[in-house]
Amino acid sequence: MFEAAELGRKITREEFDGMAPALRNELLELQFRLRDADFPVVLLFAGVDGAGKNQTANLLTEWLDPRHIVTRAYGPPSEEERERPEYWRYWRDLPPKGTIGVFLSSWYHDPLVDRAYGAISAAEMDEKLERIANFEKTLADDGALVVKFWMHLSRKAQKKRLEKLESDPLTAWEVTDTDWTHWRMYDDFIAAGERLIRHTNKGHAPWVIVEGRDTRYRSAVVLTTLRDAIARHLEARDVARRMAEETVKRDPLPAVDSALAAQPSVLSSLDMGPALERQSYELQLQEQRGRLALLHRKAREKKVSTVLVFEGWDAAGKGGAIRRLTGALNARDVQVVPIAAPTEEERAQHYLWRFWRHLSRAGRVTVFDRSWYGRVLVERVEGFCAEEAWRRAYAEINDFEDQLVETGTVLVKFWLHITPDEQIERFRRREGVEYKRWKLTEEDWRNRAKWPLYEQAVNDMVEMTSTQTAPWTLVEANDKGHARVKVLRTVCDALEERLRKRGK
Amino acid sequence: MFEAAELGRKITREEFDGMAPALRNELLELQFRLRDADFPVVLLFAGVDGAGKNQTANLLTEWLDPRHIVTRAYGPPSEEERERPEYWRYWRDLPPKGTIGVFLSSWYHDPLVDRAYGAISAAEMDEKLERIANFEKTLADDGALVVKFWMHLSRKAQKKRLEKLESDPLTAWEVTDTDWTHWRMYDDFIAAGERLIRHTNKGHAPWVIVEGRDTRYRSAVVLTTLRDAIARHLEARDVARRMAEETVKRDPLPAVDSALAAQPSVLSSLDMGPALERQSYELQLQEQRGRLALLHRKAREKKVSTVLVFEGWDAAGKGGAIRRLTGALNARDVQVVPIAAPTEEERAQHYLWRFWRHLSRAGRVTVFDRSWYGRVLVERVEGFCAEEAWRRAYAEINDFEDQLVETGTVLVKFWLHITPDEQIERFRRREGVEYKRWKLTEEDWRNRAKWPLYEQAVNDMVEMTSTQTAPWTLVEANDKGHARVKVLRTVCDALEERLRKRGK
Repeated sequence: MFEAAELGRKITREEFDGMAPALRNELLELQFRLRDADFPVVLLFAGVDGAGKNQTANLLTEWLDPRHIVTRAYGPPSEEERERPEYWRYWRDLPPKGTIGVFLSSWYHDPLVDRAYGAISAAEMDEKLERIANFEKTLADDGALVVKFWMHLSRKAQKKRLEKLESDPLTAWEVTDTDWTHWRMYDDFIAAGERLIRHTNKGHAPWVIVEGRDTRYRSAVVLTTLRDAIARHLEARDVARRMAEETVKRDPLPAVDSALAAQPSVLSSLDMGPALERQSYELQLQEQRGRLALLHRKAREKKVSTVLVFEGWDAAGKGGAIRRLTGALNARDVQVVPIAAPTEEERAQHYLWRFWRHLSRAGRVTVFDRSWYGRVLVERVEGFCAEEAWRRAYAEINDFEDQLVETGTVLVKFWLHITPDEQIERFRRREGVEYKRWKLTEEDWRNRAKWPLYEQAVNDMVEMTSTQTAPWTLVEANDKGHARVKVLRTVCDALEERLRKRGK
Repeated sequence: MFEAAELGRKITREEFDGMAPALRNELLELQFRLRDADFPVVLLFAGVDGAGKNQTANLLTEWLDPRHIVTRAYGPPSEEERERPEYWRYWRDLPPKGTIGVFLSSWYHDPLVDRAYGAISAAEMDEKLERIANFEKTLADDGALVVKFWMHLSRKAQKKRLEKLESDPLTAWEVTDTDWTHWRMYDDFIAAGERLIRHTNKGHAPWVIVEGRDTRYRSAVVLTTLRDAIARHLEARDVARRMAEETVKRDPLPAVDSALAAQPSVLSSLDMGPALERQSYELQLQEQRGRLALLHRKAREKKVSTVLVFEGWDAAGKGGAIRRLTGALNARDVQVVPIAAPTEEERAQHYLWRFWRHLSRAGRVTVFDRSWYGRVLVERVEGFCAEEAWRRAYAEINDFEDQLVETGTVLVKFWLHITPDEQIERFRRREGVEYKRWKLTEEDWRNRAKWPLYEQAVNDMVEMTSTQTAPWTLVEANDKGHARVKVLRTVCDALEERLRKRGK
């Protein structure tokens, strides 16, 4: 695979100086057009040590407008980072739309080095590479331009590079024992590199293999490839945008057949009977709150994080259930994240970005009052995103939640269900109470009109995202007491089971 | 995941009869429009035994025009099939464009059952699922509409179904001990099913989970889903086609910078010196041919297949090299497959289809005179396929060759290289020899004009497809003797190494 990158290709200073001014202008012009585009550029450099990853990244920042390009390199994860899923730090650093993010090795570092050292098997490496492929596909599906450069050096060229650095007192310190160890492991790194490229070389996130020996040659390849890729992507996104507009104008599909529309859903099949007498409610509430307090203290000690997701109909009582729960906990350990329309900063990112950033440190409880499921609920029903986008969101969400659970997080997801009659009664009651009136808007009435569409969306959501690792709990919430106790008990059960399993 | 498919949804006979005529007309109308479309429909039914996979497939054939829909079911592989890669039989059965192929369990059968029985680990299952995902992506990328139905039954409903079948003397024979064994393993099958769906539920090949208890309900879901999917796909392909036309009209990208274009390639870097004296050539040729005959006899005994790929410049001597090789073998063991423009039947399929079908039985030698690499060579350079299509072909080819090598096939790939000067001399010589004149066409001269583009394409091809499992051998072919001996020796070395490893 790498023989084509060991040919000794080089460019003279004159040749480079000849092409540089025009190339730089073209790049700056494209970067300017990119500012108004609806996608970010994710550039990644990986490959053989000494093949020029850093220098090329530096050159990019030098040539381009530095306000709109950021380079990221990563060392071993900090304590902060170790307490979250591995990809947390990469999500946090993703470039917003209109800008360029340059990543050095990053998510490719561990799989490559671990495999070269034999610390993970080929199958384990493939698993990590599949996660990478999913991650990059998620970005590309959202419109990002992803380009990856593999900088290559032959075994001989790498040795020469190291010797040259050592011979100069000014750079000798750069060469460490690890560098020489890795050089002796050259064949292992190359085998791991080939595996890595093969499993992650996708149409939407291609690898470009670059011969790294000659500085001017490798710079020219990276710069021209980047230029062509941005130009092509700007054009493709433009065509895609116009195509999407055109598709919307088309005839709608035949209406759903009424016999099918009338079928029960996971919601309409719930037994809405359960209710608690006042006294029994108070008793059970106190009992479960006490239980929660104790369990969470243990979880805090063992650094077990909890993420709770609350979804449900308007006026289903999410707020009340959340307050009953958070009240039992130490305030500094809980964070309630209310999810409304995204901010400007958030709109410039992938829709999952704003949930990633809210993941808290180990041992804390994070409560999402509405969540990433907005994508397959309100955004689907209201047509805020294309069908293709919400359909692929199921897999993206599964993947996100997998990473939470793998890190040892307790994840519990609630849908609070009330019947249409109960909802209208609650709406009416709110209208009658001055201080609750703000809770009821025009929008609530509009949403209500779309009840059947939302019901279908909830049904599909449960079907596709109620997995063994992250099941949904459907809560019969016509009776608030029953709902609150069920929520508390479910959280306690989940914590208890997690703590029984111990360890991470 | 399956709770939403255990709600007891059903449709009355009156409801079904009410919707059936219109639905059937819509489906027939769509099937008619599909005839002229440039894509096939791949429908797959999998899921719990007794949930109606077969009956629903039968219903489809009944409702639609049976000339353009074919149902495929698979038992344990035959001897013929065991001698090829696992997917050979699926590739062979793929529906041509304009038609519908219905597949029962098929490529999902083994991963599901093996995992439920614990015969494979979760990681091994994931590997098989990744192959499935790649396979379906390959089809979808080529335009196919892929829709998969997972027919579900609850544990209780499955039991009832089996008991009902047993109680009727006419159907009692249908229920086997295996059915009851599988019923007792219900939870294992469900766990495996969830894993399967999660790993293969893609935007381009989605799963639709169908509650299978009520015949009319499940039929209505499958039929309406199919109707909507075909309608949407016809429309999307139409928009995509117009978009592609528009993209072509755009300005071309900036020309390749001359300093980069002048760089050496894997071809220009070959040492074209090696040549053999007549006598030495004859000697070595005989030696290698004898060696090949012996090695192949052993390979034949051990059922080791050989696939040889010959690519190279026009007049580079592929034909001569192939004849020297096949002449040493028993004619009934060798098949030479000359690849020219695809036939009509082949054009109605994925471009890899025609190569899959030529894979021969165990112990044989198949020689491809030109090959699947046409996709990334002539089709790329001549613009016969979109850039996106040839770029993703690298991964498709890697995957195809992996499957060959995994099955134990010896795969050797040759690029026969001559210099431009040598080529022109050979062209001239052909012009002068009456019986060779037919070999030289206008096209040869046109191709020659595109030498630099082809050279770039060959370079990229070697970069992306010369893998550790299936490396390229570049043959310096200005001297025909040297080339022929090198080809023979390389094949012998590969066979020898493979036989030393024994086993499969």
